[in-house]
Amino acid sequence: MDSMTSIAIASIITAGLTTSVGCMMPAISEGKAVAAALSSIAQQPDAAPIITRTLFVGLAMIESTAIYCFVVSMILIFANPFWTHIVAK
Amino acid sequence: MDSMTSIAIASIITAGLTTSVGCMMPAISEGKAVAAALSSIAQQPDAAPIITRTLFVGLAMIESTAIYCFVVSMILIFANPFWTHIVAK
Amino acid sequence: MDSMTSIAIASIITAGLTTSVGCMMPAISEGKAVAAALSSIAQQPDAAPIITRTLFVGLAMIESTAIYCFVVSMILIFANPFWTHIVAK
Amino acid sequence: MDSMTSIAIASIITAGLTTSVGCMMPAISEGKAVAAALSSIAQQPDAAPIITRTLFVGLAMIESTAIYCFVVSMILIFANPFWTHIVAK
Amino acid sequence: MDSMTSIAIASIITAGLTTSVGCMMPAISEGKAVAAALSSIAQQPDAAPIITRTLFVGLAMIESTAIYCFVVSMILIFANPFWTHIVAK
Amino acid sequence: MDSMTSIAIASIITAGLTTSVGCMMPAISEGKAVAAALSSIAQQPDAAPIITRTLFVGLAMIESTAIYCFVVSMILIFANPFWTHIVAK
Amino acid sequence: MDSMTSIAIASIITAGLTTSVGCMMPAISEGKAVAAALSSIAQQPDAAPIITRTLFVGLAMIESTAIYCFVVSMILIFANPFWTHIVAK
Amino acid sequence: MDSMTSIAIASIITAGLTTSVGCMMPAISEGKAVAAALSSIAQQPDAAPIITRTLFVGLAMIESTAIYCFVVSMILIFANPFWTHIVAK
Amino acid sequence: MDSMTSIAIASIITAGLTTSVGCMMPAISEGKAVAAALSSIAQQPDAAPIITRTLFVGLAMIESTAIYCFVVSMILIFANPFWTHIVAK
Amino acid sequence: MDSMTSIAIASIITAGLTTSVGCMMPAISEGKAVAAALSSIAQQPDAAPIITRTLFVGLAMIESTAIYCFVVSMILIFANPFWTHIVAK
Amino acid sequence: MDSMTSIAIASIITAGLTTSVGCMMPAISEGKAVAAALSSIAQQPDAAPIITRTLFVGLAMIESTAIYCFVVSMILIFANPFWTHIVAK
Amino acid sequence: MDSMTSIAIASIITAGLTTSVGCMMPAISEGKAVAAALSSIAQQPDAAPIITRTLFVGLAMIESTAIYCFVVSMILIFANPFWTHIVAK
Amino acid sequence: MDSMTSIAIASIITAGLTTSVGCMMPAISEGKAVAAALSSIAQQPDAAPIITRTLFVGLAMIESTAIYCFVVSMILIFANPFWTHIVAK
Amino acid sequence: MDSMTSIAIASIITAGLTTSVGCMMPAISEGKAVAAALSSIAQQPDAAPIITRTLFVGLAMIESTAIYCFVVSMILIFANPFWTHIVAK
Repeated sequence: MDSMTSIAIASIITAGLTTSVGCMMPAISEGKAVAAALSSIAQQPDAAPIITRTLFVGLAMIESTAIYCFVVSMILIFANPFWTHIVAK
Repeated sequence: MDSMTSIAIASIITAGLTTSVGCMMPAISEGKAVAAALSSIAQQPDAAPIITRTLFVGLAMIESTAIYCFVVSMILIFANPFWTHIVAK
Repeated sequence: MDSMTSIAIASIITAGLTTSVGCMMPAISEGKAVAAALSSIAQQPDAAPIITRTLFVGLAMIESTAIYCFVVSMILIFANPFWTHIVAK
Repeated sequence: MDSMTSIAIASIITAGLTTSVGCMMPAISEGKAVAAALSSIAQQPDAAPIITRTLFVGLAMIESTAIYCFVVSMILIFANPFWTHIVAK
Repeated sequence: MDSMTSIAIASIITAGLTTSVGCMMPAISEGKAVAAALSSIAQQPDAAPIITRTLFVGLAMIESTAIYCFVVSMILIFANPFWTHIVAK
Repeated sequence: MDSMTSIAIASIITAGLTTSVGCMMPAISEGKAVAAALSSIAQQPDAAPIITRTLFVGLAMIESTAIYCFVVSMILIFANPFWTHIVAK
Repeated sequence: MDSMTSIAIASIITAGLTTSVGCMMPAISEGKAVAAALSSIAQQPDAAPIITRTLFVGLAMIESTAIYCFVVSMILIFANPFWTHIVAK
Repeated sequence: MDSMTSIAIASIITAGLTTSVGCMMPAISEGKAVAAALSSIAQQPDAAPIITRTLFVGLAMIESTAIYCFVVSMILIFANPFWTHIVAK
Repeated sequence: MDSMTSIAIASIITAGLTTSVGCMMPAISEGKAVAAALSSIAQQPDAAPIITRTLFVGLAMIESTAIYCFVVSMILIFANPFWTHIVAK
Repeated sequence: MDSMTSIAIASIITAGLTTSVGCMMPAISEGKAVAAALSSIAQQPDAAPIITRTLFVGLAMIESTAIYCFVVSMILIFANPFWTHIVAK
Repeated sequence: MDSMTSIAIASIITAGLTTSVGCMMPAISEGKAVAAALSSIAQQPDAAPIITRTLFVGLAMIESTAIYCFVVSMILIFANPFWTHIVAK
Repeated sequence: MDSMTSIAIASIITAGLTTSVGCMMPAISEGKAVAAALSSIAQQPDAAPIITRTLFVGLAMIESTAIYCFVVSMILIFANPFWTHIVAK
Repeated sequence: MDSMTSIAIASIITAGLTTSVGCMMPAISEGKAVAAALSSIAQQPDAAPIITRTLFVGLAMIESTAIYCFVVSMILIFANPFWTHIVAK
Repeated sequence: MDSMTSIAIASIITAGLTTSVGCMMPAISEGKAVAAALSSIAQQPDAAPIITRTLFVGLAMIESTAIYCFVVSMILIFANPFWTHIVAK
């Protein structure tokens, strides 16, 4: 295979894996946080406002790691410096 | 194999794996959240409205990671820039 | 192997794996949700209507991730753009 | 190996794996749901009708993911478009 | 290896793996269901009739996924369309 | 290797693996069921007859999945249609 | 390697693996059953006769899956039809 | 493949893997911390301020390990000294 | 490698693996049984005689699966029919 | 590949893996420590000062293992003695 | 490699693996038994003599599986019949 | 590849792996110890001095295993006797 | 590679693996025993002498399995009969 | 590769792996022992002297297995008899 094809293939596979692998654990983790929130509300309905507020901050933090992976994945597909360099050559 | 075929194969395999692997953990996670919601309702029926509302927000957050994977998968099948470049050449 | 055969093989294997791997966790997850629903009903029979309603919404959300995988699998078998392109050529 | 043989082999292996892997988790999941149903009946015999009804709906949902895999497997053995195309050629 | 041998080998290996892998989880699952049934009977002997009835329905559902795998396995050994096609040729 | 040897080797390995892998989980599962039965008898000695009866039915169901694997294994060793076909040729 | 050597090697490796892998889970399972029996006797010494009787029946069932594997292993070493066929030739 | 291509491919794959693998555990860990925070608030609503403060410090520490991986990943894509050296040559 | 060497190597490796893998789970299982026996004696010192008797019968059953593996291993080293056949030739 | 390229590739891959693998467990471990701190504060709000102080010392110790990995990773990218030696040659 | 070297290497590797793998589980198992013994003594100091006696019998049984592996390992290093045969030749 | 390059590559990869793998478990272990310390302080605030003192001694012991790995890693990068020997030659 | 080198390499790798793998589980197991001893002392301080005595006997038994692996490892490095034979030749 | 290089590479990789793998479990195990010690002190502050003394003896035993691995590792790097033999030649 020539250089261009090899880099294209590596980018495709890596982009897919980065998103799929990188989204696994944030998903698990958000499920855990949501489940804890629901149990906590059931246990202490009066604290629902502060619980949901803390939950949303936490979900945002967790989601950020999924975002990192999605960003790397998009960079590899649409703004890949190695691909740009090879194509430009 | 020529360049076109290699890229097509890499895209097909990656698209399939990205969706299937990326949907595993959101599914688990939603099951966990739903299970927690059901237990919470059984424990505190009066808090059912706020529990189901929090549940739906949480499910939407979790589903979003599955959506990322599905989106990457669709990009690889229907809007693959590397494939477009090779075909155009 | 020629291009056509390679793409056909990649599509067959990926379609099978996508469905089988992608259906594993939704199945587990639905089992978990159903089990939680049954325990909740046994614990609080009066809340059965809201529990089953929440359960069905949850099952629909979980099933959706299995549907994504099945859809990708069907696209790869019956509406594969790479195969169409190679055959057309 | 020629094209026909390769596609046949890929179809055979994928069909077998899709069914066997895809049936693992629904089986586990149904066992979990049945076990939960039995414990629930033992705990609350009066709610047996609604528990068994919810159980059967849940089992049908879980079985559906096993059915998807079996369907893909049957398509690959008896209605494989790639095989049809190669044979027709 | 010639085509016939390759297809025979793939069929043999896949048939064996499909049955052995596909029977693992139904076996685990049935054990879980039976164990739950026994505990439930010990806890609530009066509900034994409905528990054993629900158990048998559940075992039938779980066994069905093992049957799918056994059926695919038998198809691959005794009614393999690819083998038939190659032999006929 | 010639065709006959390849098929013989594949049959030997598959037969061994099918039995050994396929017997793992039924064994675990029967142990679980027996353990549950023993605990149940210790907890409710009066229900021993119905517990042992349910246990034996359950063990028979579980053993059946091990039997499937043993049958496939015996077919591959002593009634292998592919081997018969090659030898006949 | 010639045919005879290949089949001999496959038989040796498969025989060893079948016994060692196939004996793992029955061993675990018997340990579980024995442990449950001991706890049950400690909890309900009066039920010792029926507990040990049920234990022995259960151990026999579990041992049977180990026996299947040992039998397949012995067949492969001392009564291997493929080896007999090749040697006879 | 020439040197430039090899280094480009290694950088792409490593960058993707570093981010995706390195973000898995921080995500899990943040989910655990958030879940513990929510349970703690439900248990002791009066301590909510100190709990959320400790939570945020902890999340920052955990996030830092994800940041290390993201930084290494960005260095490999946009400031790779080996790539610079090869290109300069 | 010639036939004799190949069979010798396969026998050596298989003999070692069969014993080491096959002794893993019986060891675990005996530890479990002994641990259960010790707890049971501590809980019910009066039942020590019947507990130790049941323990020894159980240990003998569990040890038997390790013996199977050791026997197969010794057969492969000292009474290997395939080696005998090759040497005789 | 020439020496320079090989060493560059090995350094890139190792640097990425060292950081990503080496940051996994510290992240998990910090999450565990933070979760324990939060539960402890909820249980004993009066001991919050000493708990947070012990937590921060502990987090620093745990973070140190992640730092080791990050340092090795940076050495491999920016101060690699083997690369320096090859380049100097 | 010539026959002698191959057999020597296979013996070395197998001897090492057999001992190391085969000693893993007995070690775990003895730890479990010792831990159970210590807890039992703490719970029932009066039964210490019978507990330690049962413990030592159990440890001997568990150690026996490690001994099997060590024996096979020593046979392979110092009394290997295949090596003897090749050397004699 | 020539000798120098091979040794350099082996040293780089091994150094990275040794640090990253060797730091995983000490990190987990320190997290466990810190978590236990925090729970213990919350349970018995009066014993805080002796608990933190024992904790720090324990952390030092655990950190020592991570130090061993870091030391081996540094030896391989900066004081590798094999590399010195080859370079000197 | 010539015979001497091959045997040297196999001995080096096996010696390292035997010690490292073989020391894993005894370490875990001793930790478990020590932890159980500490809990037992805390629960029953009066029984400390007999607990520590039983602990030391148990630790010696567990350490013995690590010693077996270390011995095999030392034999392979310093008293390897195969190496001696090849060198003598 | 020549003999010297091969042995050097095998020694480097094995030394690294032996230390890193061999230090994993002692680290875990020490963490477990320390955690148990801390809980025990919190539960029974009066027994702190004997608990810490038993802890240090236990840690020394556990550390010894890590020392074995470190020693083997150092022997392979600085006192490798095979390397000495090859270099001397």
